[in-house]
Amino acid sequence: MKFGPETIIHGDCIEQMNALPEKSVDLIFADPPYNLQLGGDLLRPDNSKVDAVDDHWDQFESFAAYDKFTREWLKAARRVLKDDGAIWVIGSYHNIFRVGVAVQDLGFWILNDIVWRKSNPMPNFKGTRFANAHETLIWASKSQNAKRYTFNYDALKMANDEVQMRSDWTIPLCTGEERIKGADGQKAHPTQKPEALLYRVILSTTKPGDVILDPFFGVGTTGAAAKRLGRKFIGIEREAEYLEHAKARIAKVVPIAPEDLDVMGSKRAEPRVPFGTIVEAGLLSPGDTLYCSKGTHVAKVRPDGSITVGDLSGSIHKIGALVQSAPACNGWTYWHFKTDAGLAPIDVLRAQVRAGMN
Amino acid sequence: MKFGPETIIHGDCIEQMNALPEKSVDLIFADPPYNLQLGGDLLRPDNSKVDAVDDHWDQFESFAAYDKFTREWLKAARRVLKDDGAIWVIGSYHNIFRVGVAVQDLGFWILNDIVWRKSNPMPNFKGTRFANAHETLIWASKSQNAKRYTFNYDALKMANDEVQMRSDWTIPLCTGEERIKGADGQKAHPTQKPEALLYRVILSTTKPGDVILDPFFGVGTTGAAAKRLGRKFIGIEREAEYLEHAKARIAKVVPIAPEDLDVMGSKRAEPRVPFGTIVEAGLLSPGDTLYCSKGTHVAKVRPDGSITVGDLSGSIHKIGALVQSAPACNGWTYWHFKTDAGLAPIDVLRAQVRAGMN
Repeated sequence: MKFGPETIIHGDCIEQMNALPEKSVDLIFADPPYNLQLGGDLLRPDNSKVDAVDDHWDQFESFAAYDKFTREWLKAARRVLKDDGAIWVIGSYHNIFRVGVAVQDLGFWILNDIVWRKSNPMPNFKGTRFANAHETLIWASKSQNAKRYTFNYDALKMANDEVQMRSDWTIPLCTGEERIKGADGQKAHPTQKPEALLYRVILSTTKPGDVILDPFFGVGTTGAAAKRLGRKFIGIEREAEYLEHAKARIAKVVPIAPEDLDVMGSKRAEPRVPFGTIVEAGLLSPGDTLYCSKGTHVAKVRPDGSITVGDLSGSIHKIGALVQSAPACNGWTYWHFKTDAGLAPIDVLRAQVRAGMN
Repeated sequence: MKFGPETIIHGDCIEQMNALPEKSVDLIFADPPYNLQLGGDLLRPDNSKVDAVDDHWDQFESFAAYDKFTREWLKAARRVLKDDGAIWVIGSYHNIFRVGVAVQDLGFWILNDIVWRKSNPMPNFKGTRFANAHETLIWASKSQNAKRYTFNYDALKMANDEVQMRSDWTIPLCTGEERIKGADGQKAHPTQKPEALLYRVILSTTKPGDVILDPFFGVGTTGAAAKRLGRKFIGIEREAEYLEHAKARIAKVVPIAPEDLDVMGSKRAEPRVPFGTIVEAGLLSPGDTLYCSKGTHVAKVRPDGSITVGDLSGSIHKIGALVQSAPACNGWTYWHFKTDAGLAPIDVLRAQVRAGMN
């Protein structure tokens, strides 16, 4: 079954997920009820009532009931997730531990827990705890040996001033214009997530055209970010009132033009180029000499792309390791060739071949 | 049983905790094995081996085995914890979810999860995940209705430039001088925690003289920080080699002088002063007038510390709420009295009475 760009379903998430085709979605983003167990109202010092989450959908009468619900929707989600897909679940200390254990027990493989640091958190009014200034997301692949999950490493690094993206993200709460209000001028949804958070989740772990499922769609933040980034989405939501807001909001989203969605290529997505291809392409010739960066080790190139050092012969990686008596070696960055501007890593030649392949 | 300032025990943590008297410690700090499930070596791009945690004490053959171990040591810990005590457990995404569920299931009450953001994390070498730049701590009281746990709110706020201490702490990894090396010059313990982290845990959730138990003592960071801050500690460690390092290290610690350990008083620790005491002390007299800060509401003081507005009479809090038709009111900060320098909150008078009580 091919999904259209936008699928919005009003119904129970477990039932509706069970009605979707098996292995049909690339990413799941779930923002389930947090089971906040708020006994009574939370008052600010100026005694105004904090609009906490006391909606009926967040009330579970026990941990066991919450665990049962969690495992049921995670099982249903797992069925519709492709084998090289991934899942994100967000929560707070109230529920994230129980969700994390369910994720591990059902066979998903946790890749990272990500901390959303709120730059403008609600203070702790009673002064009896630390200001709860973050929430936790779990990012997991479908199983331990599912290695082909999408991770746009270079795009994220680029988005982070060329520094590896860390597991803690600093993003403001959803306030002001972006926060959807009901007819009464009040917040339409108590835990609407900032679009910037979904933007980073989607940019980092999906490709344009991927299908993203959100079984707790709420007021449609996942849908808005997905549409903007040229991904398809399926949103399931039980509360009709939330869905109305979601539809209206998503209708206003202007997608980024497809040609503007390219990001820095992730290393693993680039085509594989064996060293033999470099020799075939005439970029290096049999008999040419390769050098380590300091010039202390030299090797001879052979017609089949193997290299020799004295009576040692083998791949650029194996020989590179042997000459350093190291367990392993990335030959592409270890071996250099002579250029007018001095030694350059043979990786440069690989990039040349790849450029010709695109 | 009274504990001396320093108790170091070589043995199994569950056995040794079960040999300690019931309800005898004020705080537990636990840094249990993380069950990192590292399959094979982790290599840097330059193929040097990352000293991961592959020690035998971190190897569990299944989640179930890890859960069993976790619940056993947590039960033993709970028995020795005072009813108004608290527990801290630190972990990573590999184990913290399973620990969190065990903490909740055994009846502890999670107050915060705290994120230790590492300012200098180890990068992700393979570029297949986000750089794992944090660890998570769980801070929990012994039960939901244990309200008298220690939390030095004002001290923490002071330590954070008068801003509420958040649930995410930025502290560097333990490196350089502080990192304990073995005779071979290598790190003595693969996951030695920075003393600054323990300093903040201890400063925020204990009082001088409290007893702190660390059932996974390792090379003694909890002991070093406790000794420095004038708290007693009990350290249990299975590996004799770690204990030798711990003893040597703690022997070098110079405790802060007791008189230098005072911190900003936490609101709840201050003695309770009813408004009646202000009238008794003659700081206000029956018939005096109280004003709200804008002067719009006025009330009369009565001999028993009640106040009246028209035919309404009651406590400073109740009447303060009634005149604002608000659910609750802190009368100490709402009502003011006349001074030469204008209106001042009656809280000032309470501070005066408290000063006399210290």
